[in-house]
Amino acid sequence: MATYKAPIRDMKFVLYELLEGDKLCELPGYEEATRDLVEPILEEAAKITEEVLFPLNRSGDEEECQWNEGKVSTPAGFKDAYTLFREGGWTAIACDPNYGGMGMPKMVNTMVEEMICSANLSFGMYPGLSFGAYTAMHGFATDELKDTYLPKLVDGTWSGTMCLTEPHCGTDLGLCRTKADPQDDGSYLVTGTKIFISAGEHDMTDNIIHLVLARTPDAPKGIKGISLFVVPKYLPDADGEAGEFNNVSCGSIEHKMGIKASATCVMNFDNAKGWLVGTLNKGMQGMFAMMNQERLAVGIQGLGLGEASYQGAVEYAKERLQGRSISGVKHPDKPADPIIVHPDVRRMLMTQRAYMEGCRAFGGWVSQQLDISRKHPDAQRREEADEFVQLMTPIVKALFTDLGYEATNHGMQVFGGHGFIREHGMEQYVRDCRIAQIYEGTNGIQALDLIGRKMPDKAGRLLRRFFHPVQDYIEQNVMDDELGEFVQPLAKAFGRLQQATGQLARVGMGKPEEAAAGATEYLRLFGLVGLAYMWCRMVEVAKDKQDGDEGDFYRAKITTARFFMQKLLPQCSSLFSSIMAGGSSMMELDEDLF
Amino acid sequence: MATYKAPIRDMKFVLYELLEGDKLCELPGYEEATRDLVEPILEEAAKITEEVLFPLNRSGDEEECQWNEGKVSTPAGFKDAYTLFREGGWTAIACDPNYGGMGMPKMVNTMVEEMICSANLSFGMYPGLSFGAYTAMHGFATDELKDTYLPKLVDGTWSGTMCLTEPHCGTDLGLCRTKADPQDDGSYLVTGTKIFISAGEHDMTDNIIHLVLARTPDAPKGIKGISLFVVPKYLPDADGEAGEFNNVSCGSIEHKMGIKASATCVMNFDNAKGWLVGTLNKGMQGMFAMMNQERLAVGIQGLGLGEASYQGAVEYAKERLQGRSISGVKHPDKPADPIIVHPDVRRMLMTQRAYMEGCRAFGGWVSQQLDISRKHPDAQRREEADEFVQLMTPIVKALFTDLGYEATNHGMQVFGGHGFIREHGMEQYVRDCRIAQIYEGTNGIQALDLIGRKMPDKAGRLLRRFFHPVQDYIEQNVMDDELGEFVQPLAKAFGRLQQATGQLARVGMGKPEEAAAGATEYLRLFGLVGLAYMWCRMVEVAKDKQDGDEGDFYRAKITTARFFMQKLLPQCSSLFSSIMAGGSSMMELDEDLF
Repeated sequence: MATYKAPIRDMKFVLYELLEGDKLCELPGYEEATRDLVEPILEEAAKITEEVLFPLNRSGDEEECQWNEGKVSTPAGFKDAYTLFREGGWTAIACDPNYGGMGMPKMVNTMVEEMICSANLSFGMYPGLSFGAYTAMHGFATDELKDTYLPKLVDGTWSGTMCLTEPHCGTDLGLCRTKADPQDDGSYLVTGTKIFISAGEHDMTDNIIHLVLARTPDAPKGIKGISLFVVPKYLPDADGEAGEFNNVSCGSIEHKMGIKASATCVMNFDNAKGWLVGTLNKGMQGMFAMMNQERLAVGIQGLGLGEASYQGAVEYAKERLQGRSISGVKHPDKPADPIIVHPDVRRMLMTQRAYMEGCRAFGGWVSQQLDISRKHPDAQRREEADEFVQLMTPIVKALFTDLGYEATNHGMQVFGGHGFIREHGMEQYVRDCRIAQIYEGTNGIQALDLIGRKMPDKAGRLLRRFFHPVQDYIEQNVMDDELGEFVQPLAKAFGRLQQATGQLARVGMGKPEEAAAGATEYLRLFGLVGLAYMWCRMVEVAKDKQDGDEGDFYRAKITTARFFMQKLLPQCSSLFSSIMAGGSSMMELDEDLF
Repeated sequence: MATYKAPIRDMKFVLYELLEGDKLCELPGYEEATRDLVEPILEEAAKITEEVLFPLNRSGDEEECQWNEGKVSTPAGFKDAYTLFREGGWTAIACDPNYGGMGMPKMVNTMVEEMICSANLSFGMYPGLSFGAYTAMHGFATDELKDTYLPKLVDGTWSGTMCLTEPHCGTDLGLCRTKADPQDDGSYLVTGTKIFISAGEHDMTDNIIHLVLARTPDAPKGIKGISLFVVPKYLPDADGEAGEFNNVSCGSIEHKMGIKASATCVMNFDNAKGWLVGTLNKGMQGMFAMMNQERLAVGIQGLGLGEASYQGAVEYAKERLQGRSISGVKHPDKPADPIIVHPDVRRMLMTQRAYMEGCRAFGGWVSQQLDISRKHPDAQRREEADEFVQLMTPIVKALFTDLGYEATNHGMQVFGGHGFIREHGMEQYVRDCRIAQIYEGTNGIQALDLIGRKMPDKAGRLLRRFFHPVQDYIEQNVMDDELGEFVQPLAKAFGRLQQATGQLARVGMGKPEEAAAGATEYLRLFGLVGLAYMWCRMVEVAKDKQDGDEGDFYRAKITTARFFMQKLLPQCSSLFSSIMAGGSSMMELDEDLF
């Protein structure tokens, strides 16, 4: 059975050595986020994730959620763990202090999210969805609704959901049929069926607050007639506590490949009372507020699971004795060498490591910009940061989950046959990670978002939020004696990204299908350049500290960076060729011939 | 719920249009394998796999095998299906007519195996393992042992296993501890524990015949002291039927990620009576006879599951309505277009298709050479063909299972959220396929076998069995008006393969670790070149038939070939760069720093 230790040292490296996290407290509203507050938060988060959540991960997978006449019970231990989690303030960490939140920056919250996902993704789904509902309401609901619901969502006594999908519509929410009939008192009666509702029903909170996409009777067709409603399972009573049942019921739960301790519900709304959140027919706004946040969070799921799998694989590779090193026996005292001596095992471990440390740094950067976009006193800085985050959201979601999936598969492979056996936990990481490539918009949809929305937006201004700093960095460092080794491959990959961008932008104008045909490869190329840039910056920090107390840590960074540049970044050349080949061979075949 | 139709048309294309399958019956011993016998066999195989095995695939996954006090019961329907399978002669198809077999060529058997794996891999494990045991005994056992066991293995009333792995040894069989004590009557008493024994215990046959690796008391240490024994669950009685219990018991079964209806057993041998198969201390010979066959068979598992997933994904992509084609509405009568109009969905379907059809052709070629290596009257032709098969065995195993896994993941992704739900069956293909990358030697071990054994063998003569025909083909066709478009990318990829081969061969002499560091990428590069070559040859056949009755079929081949060349083969450039970068960045990091 694998173990998990939160990678606190690396998180501090990202926060305080790479990304100036000590300046977070200079942002108005984040004054409290000083290093001497943040570090204990990370250490406490490590404790609860390692000691409370992780031990329930395997048992939760085995036991799964159970549905019984509309009630859903979570696996043994989940309710108690949730109580500890809630009481520890973890549901409140990133929320507005006006509603009882701790108001921690995204940069800090991202680190905590990573730990939760590593330790127990299924568990993390419950507070994760609540935070999505919180975000939509915080951004778009009336003060009255906020006062009613937010304190409960923040302290975690109530939880939340996002009810978007219906049986006949997944990606295409314009097909949504759930109805909302306006009532004289300003409320609505909501009727319809939603599927794939994570945390839709469970036994861990007093109430469940659903954010539901629905259509009013005379709404325009399609996506422009969708509104967002808040529909609680129990109506708040006069004291603001869970009162009367509101005709929201769980018809069944799904039996899934993974995240089995997360209840995925069919939710039936039968004239359930709800209130409009935001503007009529502009429900997609609130939906996207949730969704964008969730997309970043799902990216972090990929990172968290990849990290957990890496740790399990390293532990095993050091213990498992099989064969001898081909460069000569390493442990003559033992019947065989540990498998970490074998190049192919190294390849897998180094790949996991290079991807996950790279994603942690990249995710940190995006979070930093998100914090700036929200709190910086200078409006232009906020706007620029916001544009950067918009650009990066689909990349973080798709890249991190694709790499997380690859990493969990590598970790399982290191275990050989034992990786396929459930008790070791390595195959669970694979199964749990698989959904992250699908939900909150499949990774193919992320790629379309990147090339169809983000790339052309504001005549390419979003792109420049990434391209300019990278270009500047390359110009300044490519001739550097020590950094050059790393910056040169970055420069080469970046050149390909620029060329591919030009190609897709040109082609996309006349033949959007041609551009879309390269979208997935383009997103990955973009993401790899982002990782390469982060690896260069990490080397820049590490190179001057190699001889200090923690020289090992910094030298390992440099070696890992070298591995990334030499063995992983070359993918860019293939991606580039594939993009440049266009889409005709893909679209040519007649539908009937499939 | 996905359906399955055996791809008979494509199989006939491979057999009779691409690979001269009508000449099979000219090989002594395969006289009966005429087209008018083989085609009905394929059609009957389609029937039993589609109608009997496939309907048990999902239910078998849900029900799993159950262990109860040493007895293992297979899921409902398996025993009856096995009886039908056996009575239909499917356990006998590739076996020696001297023992009741049908003596069909490998080329035919490979097609049948693919169908079985598509329809129900778990089921296929039982006869698959029997065939492995049959092969070892047929090649190495005494006539007396053969007469006793082979007829029962061939008609399927008894089944077989391969008992290799022990708790502390997986890849490194030299660590094996199971003992075999010689008895005065020439038999041995075998004692020890074996793990991961597929079909080790079940309820479908009267007896189970274990082929067990063990050590005699004064055997040399390591791999050179391993012998192979046949150890039946029940000792044959005077009539040759299952008699007295032989102290072979199943201690437990594993709970696995996939192939849940295949019993993976811990087997305890407690002074169980066994007989030596082959020469003392040369047990690895018989083991490799089984193993090489199983490695090809496991490759076919990857193909079969990828094909099944492709079929499911195509069906769904034509039915599921979401969004509109970005090149303009395709089905104005419907609320949305079917998702097959979307480029990213096409990308996944075309990738599945190009890989699986390519593997089918490639697997057909290797099978053809295997048949020649066994039956050709000319000893030199036999030897050359055998060298080719030796070279290709690790490639088929690793490449097909890696591509199969990618394909099953694409198929699941096409389903979006529904792909993650068990009832649709798409995630089962992913879980079932995952083991194929691990068992019978992990894919990393296959890559080492390729560069460490096959590449240097006979001063590179094995390599030339592939390089020479490909080189000749390129020279003859690269300037061809129609073929040139396809042969040019093949030539480019082949050039990289030659260069990488030279590099690894040079480096491998002095620093085997440097070569091993590129082994996995090298195997994939090799395999992709093999697929590219097969795609060229398929185009060569198809191009002249585009205007005939089945023009659609042949034009689809050409389009798929073009997609492969333009969108998939470019991987070779990255693989090449990664190989050429060597292994220092991979091996540099100190073990303690992981």
